[in-house]
Amino acid sequence: MDNYRRAVEAALEKLLPPPPKGDPAAVVAEAMRYSLLAGGKRVRPVLTLAFCQLCGGSWRDAMPLACAVEMVHTYSLIHDDLPCMDDDDLRRGRPTCHKVYGEAMALLAGDGLLTLAFDTALCFYDPARGAGAARTLARLAGYRGMVGGQCVDLSTQGKAADLSLLQTMDQGKTVALIEAACRMGCMAASADREALSAASRYAQGVGMAFQIRDDLLDVLGDAHKLGKNTGMDAARDKTNYVSLLGLEAAQQQVDAYTQQAVEALEAFEGDSRFLREFALSLAGREA
Amino acid sequence: MDNYRRAVEAALEKLLPPPPKGDPAAVVAEAMRYSLLAGGKRVRPVLTLAFCQLCGGSWRDAMPLACAVEMVHTYSLIHDDLPCMDDDDLRRGRPTCHKVYGEAMALLAGDGLLTLAFDTALCFYDPARGAGAARTLARLAGYRGMVGGQCVDLSTQGKAADLSLLQTMDQGKTVALIEAACRMGCMAASADREALSAASRYAQGVGMAFQIRDDLLDVLGDAHKLGKNTGMDAARDKTNYVSLLGLEAAQQQVDAYTQQAVEALEAFEGDSRFLREFALSLAGREA
Repeated sequence: MDNYRRAVEAALEKLLPPPPKGDPAAVVAEAMRYSLLAGGKRVRPVLTLAFCQLCGGSWRDAMPLACAVEMVHTYSLIHDDLPCMDDDDLRRGRPTCHKVYGEAMALLAGDGLLTLAFDTALCFYDPARGAGAARTLARLAGYRGMVGGQCVDLSTQGKAADLSLLQTMDQGKTVALIEAACRMGCMAASADREALSAASRYAQGVGMAFQIRDDLLDVLGDAHKLGKNTGMDAARDKTNYVSLLGLEAAQQQVDAYTQQAVEALEAFEGDSRFLREFALSLAGREA
Repeated sequence: MDNYRRAVEAALEKLLPPPPKGDPAAVVAEAMRYSLLAGGKRVRPVLTLAFCQLCGGSWRDAMPLACAVEMVHTYSLIHDDLPCMDDDDLRRGRPTCHKVYGEAMALLAGDGLLTLAFDTALCFYDPARGAGAARTLARLAGYRGMVGGQCVDLSTQGKAADLSLLQTMDQGKTVALIEAACRMGCMAASADREALSAASRYAQGVGMAFQIRDDLLDVLGDAHKLGKNTGMDAARDKTNYVSLLGLEAAQQQVDAYTQQAVEALEAFEGDSRFLREFALSLAGREA
């Protein structure tokens, strides 16, 4: 895990170097770096690298795809934190991008990272395979995926949501990009359809477990440890798994989804111990 | 011109169909359609189609690339009009996206269109060539291109800018995406380096002429005909070509850049009459 994470950090730093002195567009590059290089668990790029390795590829080859997913994730956090969206001041223990650079620059930093993500994915050494992976990213990050999930979230704010709507929302907001990460790793290794579909099941399990766990932490967690404010859903009158199911049933859902992820790994011949551990640790993570 | 434009309209409508009834993410799709299908001159996609044809390709093949450029252009307008940026109420004679759908949904609509642009470009029938074209789009639309230009614009607002800074800004804000449009058309037809470099010179000429003409129209134009408010640069205390050079010298610059565009077409063996006319008409356009 630490090896993967360190390699991702180094690759991100290289893909978005400090702007040259006197560059009149330096500020947006700095704002992009501020958010992209803010640490974080790098869950999505690690999944891309691990699935590439699991499917018989070399994880180093998948690095442009892994970094592309992390750029999309970071752009979505920046835009999500903006005053017109969630209006958050704190992210990963630091002031959010717009708190430091202003709203307009944070908007541009998000746009810049989303665009750079595709530039980066298309650096994959095999252009046709890179194109397929980039298209997977575009589809799952777009209005039928992640952006669609954000839209459902906005549309239901302040309204009572049922479990099915909540699942649709999290399918978009959380699962879609994790699914892109896992599938792109398989694609980097030219894996077959069966592998892709198992990767989607794994992503579904890990993503939903992660999301419900996030709702649990929002109620139970410690703002200092998490690096972001807690109790936000309740404060915003947002329905989440805990408010809908209660603490105990929500925890059971975390376990069931984690089980689904672990079982999906049986479809692969390679050594899946790392991804198994990863699914289990995400379900039990403290922060 | 009308043929190209009608084909672009039909293709955009097909690429972003009305959302199915009951789709919980319908609002963002509607907001995207509202802005994408609002008419407009379709300058950029027409350039893509015409350059493909000029380089011996069939313009119909280049349609995904043409539509991708128009989606990027539309996303940039939506985000540009937001209250934290230019705070515009009127675009193409209609209320801006955030006036109709609210700020948060307009932000998402822009994000959705930028993402859909790459999904669309990567539909090009030859995946490796599509990947090359999509990468050109990402590079020229990104923080070293269009987004960088917006950043320069923000950073210099309220400050005195000189001609060189103004050119850097417009290189990003206006020329970059027009350059992407022209180059992607050439790439669709597998044109060589020489053609690509001539396409860039044409884009530079047309783009700068277009931008300076836009500054002239901001001073001289009629809000009703233009479908947007005039006198905005002066109201915002923004430096532009007219405030820097005066009306007459600004008009001379328009003519010189248009001449550069026309001369760039000499590098091509195909029939360049349409692109010649196009450059001349952009320089003299009333709206």
